[in-house]
Amino acid sequence: MLSNTSDAREDADDRHAIRSLIDAYAHCADRRDAGGQMALFTDDCRLLVFFDVRSTEPSQSYQGRAALAPVFDALNAYEATTHFNGQSSISLRGDQATGESYCLAHHVTRKSDKAELMVASIRYLDEFIRTPAGWRFGERKLMVDWIDTRPLGPQQPQG
Amino acid sequence: MLSNTSDAREDADDRHAIRSLIDAYAHCADRRDAGGQMALFTDDCRLLVFFDVRSTEPSQSYQGRAALAPVFDALNAYEATTHFNGQSSISLRGDQATGESYCLAHHVTRKSDKAELMVASIRYLDEFIRTPAGWRFGERKLMVDWIDTRPLGPQQPQG
Amino acid sequence: MLSNTSDAREDADDRHAIRSLIDAYAHCADRRDAGGQMALFTDDCRLLVFFDVRSTEPSQSYQGRAALAPVFDALNAYEATTHFNGQSSISLRGDQATGESYCLAHHVTRKSDKAELMVASIRYLDEFIRTPAGWRFGERKLMVDWIDTRPLGPQQPQG
Repeated sequence: MLSNTSDAREDADDRHAIRSLIDAYAHCADRRDAGGQMALFTDDCRLLVFFDVRSTEPSQSYQGRAALAPVFDALNAYEATTHFNGQSSISLRGDQATGESYCLAHHVTRKSDKAELMVASIRYLDEFIRTPAGWRFGERKLMVDWIDTRPLGPQQPQG
Repeated sequence: MLSNTSDAREDADDRHAIRSLIDAYAHCADRRDAGGQMALFTDDCRLLVFFDVRSTEPSQSYQGRAALAPVFDALNAYEATTHFNGQSSISLRGDQATGESYCLAHHVTRKSDKAELMVASIRYLDEFIRTPAGWRFGERKLMVDWIDTRPLGPQQPQG
Repeated sequence: MLSNTSDAREDADDRHAIRSLIDAYAHCADRRDAGGQMALFTDDCRLLVFFDVRSTEPSQSYQGRAALAPVFDALNAYEATTHFNGQSSISLRGDQATGESYCLAHHVTRKSDKAELMVASIRYLDEFIRTPAGWRFGERKLMVDWIDTRPLGPQQPQG
C-alpha cells in the first residue's frame, strides 16, 4: 500500500510537471521569450505542424532545437498573442509520456487603425521525455483543426 | 494524521479521475467515438439540455445510455468540433460527486466554399457516480448560456 | 523522504485550493454573487485593471474589499457573462503565493433584438495570502491583452 500510495503521488507530481511544461510553452510564446520556449524541448526534438489534420504528412516540419528559433521568432509579427490552454490528457510510461492538449491560439495584428484576430484551434499531440533537468518536449505535433480570421471589433473598455 | 493524508490523497485521485471523465467526453465527441462517449455514462443516466437556463424544464431530455446514441451521432453533421474545456469545480460525497464545468463547444460546418462556426457556451452541471469500473456520469445537464453563429473567416495558415 | 512527500502533498493541496479560489471568482461573477466574490479577497486587497498592458499605471485601481462592490455590481448590466478560465501557473512561498491565470471573459448584452458579445482576453497576475479562513486574493491585476466586440450571431439550437 505504501508503495502504491507513493506511486500515485509520483504520478500526480509527473502530471503536474508536464502540465507546467505545456503552460510554460504558452507563457514563453505570449511573452516573446523564444529562448525560454526553446529550452522546453530536447536537443533532438521534432516540431510538426498539420494544417490538414487528415493528412499523414505534416505541412511544416522542424528537426532539432536550433531549428525552432525562427518559428518562435515569427510571433514577433503579432501585436499580441494569447495561447489559451484548455484540457490536457497525459499518459505516463516511466520516463516517457504522451499527451493531447487543447489550445485556442489567438493572434492579433494591427495595421494603422485596422486590427485583425486570427484564432487557430490546435490539438497538441505531444511526446514528453524525462531528462535530468526535468520533463521536456521530445516531439510536438500541432493539429490545426480550424482557423478563424476576422476583424477585431472596437475596444470598448467597461467602467 | 496518516489517515488525513490518505484521505487528501484519495480526494485528489478522485478529482483527477472525474476531470479525466469530463475530458474524455470532449475527446470522444471531437473524435466521433460515440461508443466511447456512451460508455462514460451509467446505464440509467440522464442527459438534459437547457437552451433557456432560466427555465426549470429542459429543452431536450434523454433517459438511459441507449438514448444517447443519436445525440452523439448528430455530431457527424459537422466538419469539425472542438469541445474546449475550461475550469471544473468538483464536490465529492463518498461514492457520488457533483460538478460545474465550463465548455466552449465549437462546431464547424462547410457547404461548398462557405464555412460557418457555431460556438455554444455551456456550463455542464454533472452528477457523478463511482461504479466498479470507475467514475461515470449519472446525470449531465447542459446549461447553454449563449450561442454565437458566424461565418468562419478565411484560413490563412502562417509561415 | 517522508517529510519531502508530505511537503509535495501540501504543495499540491495549496495549488488546488488556490486554483479553486480563482475558479470561485469566475463562478461568483457569472452567477452575480457579488458578496461571495468580495469574500474571496483580503480586507486590504487591491484590484488593478490595465487596459494598456505596457503601461506601469493601472487604468483603474480599487483599494480594500468594500471598494469592490460597485465593480462586481456592474456585471448586472450584462444579460450573461462567461468568465472562461484557462491555465494557471502558481508559485508558492510559504503563506504567500503568486500566479498568472488566463481568462477569456465573455460579456453578452441584448437590446431589443440586437445582441452583442464583448470578449476581454485577460491575464490575471495575482498575489495570494494564506489566511486562517483559507487562501485569499491579496492583489489581483487584470492585464487586458485585447478586447473584441462584435454582434452576437443568431441562436440556432441544434436538434
